[in-house]
Amino acid sequence: MPRQPIVTLTTDFGLNDHFVGTVKGVILDICPEVTIVDISHSVQAFDILDGALAIAQAYSYFPAGTVHMVVVDPGVGTARRPIIASSDRYHFVVPDNGVLSLVYAREERMHVRDISSDHYFLQPICNTFHARDIFAPVASYLAKGVDSQKFGEEVEDFVRFNAPRPKPANGNSFRGVVLKVDRFGNLITNFTAQDVPALFGAQVPPFKVVVGKSEVTSMKNSYAEGDPGEVFAILGSMGYLEIASNRGSAAQLAGIGKGAEVNLALEGSAAAANG
Amino acid sequence: MPRQPIVTLTTDFGLNDHFVGTVKGVILDICPEVTIVDISHSVQAFDILDGALAIAQAYSYFPAGTVHMVVVDPGVGTARRPIIASSDRYHFVVPDNGVLSLVYAREERMHVRDISSDHYFLQPICNTFHARDIFAPVASYLAKGVDSQKFGEEVEDFVRFNAPRPKPANGNSFRGVVLKVDRFGNLITNFTAQDVPALFGAQVPPFKVVVGKSEVTSMKNSYAEGDPGEVFAILGSMGYLEIASNRGSAAQLAGIGKGAEVNLALEGSAAAANG
Amino acid sequence: MPRQPIVTLTTDFGLNDHFVGTVKGVILDICPEVTIVDISHSVQAFDILDGALAIAQAYSYFPAGTVHMVVVDPGVGTARRPIIASSDRYHFVVPDNGVLSLVYAREERMHVRDISSDHYFLQPICNTFHARDIFAPVASYLAKGVDSQKFGEEVEDFVRFNAPRPKPANGNSFRGVVLKVDRFGNLITNFTAQDVPALFGAQVPPFKVVVGKSEVTSMKNSYAEGDPGEVFAILGSMGYLEIASNRGSAAQLAGIGKGAEVNLALEGSAAAANG
Repeated sequence: MPRQPIVTLTTDFGLNDHFVGTVKGVILDICPEVTIVDISHSVQAFDILDGALAIAQAYSYFPAGTVHMVVVDPGVGTARRPIIASSDRYHFVVPDNGVLSLVYAREERMHVRDISSDHYFLQPICNTFHARDIFAPVASYLAKGVDSQKFGEEVEDFVRFNAPRPKPANGNSFRGVVLKVDRFGNLITNFTAQDVPALFGAQVPPFKVVVGKSEVTSMKNSYAEGDPGEVFAILGSMGYLEIASNRGSAAQLAGIGKGAEVNLALEGSAAAANG
Repeated sequence: MPRQPIVTLTTDFGLNDHFVGTVKGVILDICPEVTIVDISHSVQAFDILDGALAIAQAYSYFPAGTVHMVVVDPGVGTARRPIIASSDRYHFVVPDNGVLSLVYAREERMHVRDISSDHYFLQPICNTFHARDIFAPVASYLAKGVDSQKFGEEVEDFVRFNAPRPKPANGNSFRGVVLKVDRFGNLITNFTAQDVPALFGAQVPPFKVVVGKSEVTSMKNSYAEGDPGEVFAILGSMGYLEIASNRGSAAQLAGIGKGAEVNLALEGSAAAANG
Repeated sequence: MPRQPIVTLTTDFGLNDHFVGTVKGVILDICPEVTIVDISHSVQAFDILDGALAIAQAYSYFPAGTVHMVVVDPGVGTARRPIIASSDRYHFVVPDNGVLSLVYAREERMHVRDISSDHYFLQPICNTFHARDIFAPVASYLAKGVDSQKFGEEVEDFVRFNAPRPKPANGNSFRGVVLKVDRFGNLITNFTAQDVPALFGAQVPPFKVVVGKSEVTSMKNSYAEGDPGEVFAILGSMGYLEIASNRGSAAQLAGIGKGAEVNLALEGSAAAANG
């Protein structure tokens, strides 16, 4: 599968410690010709959903054969399994805690294996750093071309959760949530084209979004269309409805952050079609 | 032009989101043998001058053939053009908003092309993420060796601005500005050898810099020459006069930051020579 | 020595400026086929011990032949020497200020050379950026395969310090210190198996650690064993005793940070055996 071997890293390790550097040393020691790519090391500490969002956004842009290692692992050292999940194009090396839930939701068919062949591990295994001692070696051997079947048996009972979906409220309205706040202060909501197709169509019906202190009734095509200080809606690059502001932080203007409630009301027939 | 293809990235995307990882996936998918180098992703959000400073400091240290992608792009999704600017040694792939102004000022001759060949783009193009859908693919095909002429017509009316230059004030004094504060709290002013050659010469004349709460009359050759808590001047690695402190933050000691006024007075004949 | 040339970077430069990007440009210009790996650029500014901890944790995981460049250099531009320190497997390119002290302590035999062959440097040398003008070029030529002997004479009087070690207090107790706080809020103390072997053995004797507001009497095998809000001890991946909390910040719960005092009391025979 791999030609130019690539391993990507998505973790909650941050960049202030030696953790990421150590993991890269392990990978290069096993597979010196690898290209290592950081997707993000700023997943919120211990936050599996945040990690699930990060990998789900980025993985499909990489070449076939890429090995994606994702370590957001509050259960490190416990009985939770290390697994390899494989699609037609990629391998994912992760703790079995649901961090691939949004990937599972997008991929038709995944084969998931319990990693049990401990001769691939760095010994002795430290209970607090499986990224170094288990996940990095396994990802490296996969990138090197070792067959995924060599690492353990296929399992069906892997952990997955459903991402939070907007819920219908009174008749023509929906209650959603802010999944994350990006670098620019844009509020990434959990409204997708599947939930409210009318908003993602060519003709956007009248609508109102209430989020924190802000009431939003305008949909823009680009950030720069907004007036200074205006908070508006936009269909973001992640496939979610975003609440944004031109050269400013919508999070700051609305006075809210991650996890905040988002109330959307559609008007008239659009509401009926989607209610 | 390229042998070992190199693409550098300078953006205001930060490292907390998947943006940079996604861009790297796109680049590797088109040009798997590329070396990708981060110059900085911490350009201040929406701040074109800050991006212009970052790329101008770093670009010339890279091997000939390097493709520099710079995306600080508050106008993403509007009519501002994506362009390729080419010098004898490098290609730059950027939005046409002036972010290369300090590069244009240093390079004799640049050829600038409006990128219009949209078959190189990732389709469909998202209005909020041209880095992924336009800039990354174009940078990758350039790194792969596609001729820059294939991407669009040469243009002359590209956007450039003049970096803020110190202005003469009463007779022997000048008013400048803090361009940026670096990691160590050093204040990077906009005074260069061109503005005040006397300060950058072998014999520094008596001078006084007033910046925030600090009055500076001493020029040092290294940071470590300063006494604890002393604020002094030094000729920094970027070619600008810096206000610094030994193992401390001049920004904190002077009580000011980016954009603050810097008043320089030269004494006697030196002043006359440069006034 | 090197096959696939690798240069790692450990600095206090942060990621907000162009410094790291510029250094990488210099390295690639000299050695285009190199793989550059960031260990950390978030060493605390000017903090040589913090840099010593970072490189000591990560260096040994890299392939033989790796060149480790470590620049935490408050004395840049002064008489402190640039040196190459070589073990059987690695070269280190650093300012001679003790930043390798913890590496010296782990390696049997190091050869240290004063770097004096200035034709390898980037000219003119800037007094405030030796990473760009001295350390990066030297690291690159080493990675390219230039013999370390070509850079200067071997020296014996290189700078090294002893890492702070716990001190015995009244009878069965010891006073240590928090060396650093990691990304997750874990307190990395300076207690090692050498200082208190009983704590690192199979049968942990009763003990009490007092650190800030917290009294810790429990040793866990994994972070997830802790109850919510509980502060406990754990043997961390760095070889130090850590004070931690499950999905929470021990630093916050104990109300202290780096440099704080850690008091450990062992009970009964264990204390006697180790006192």
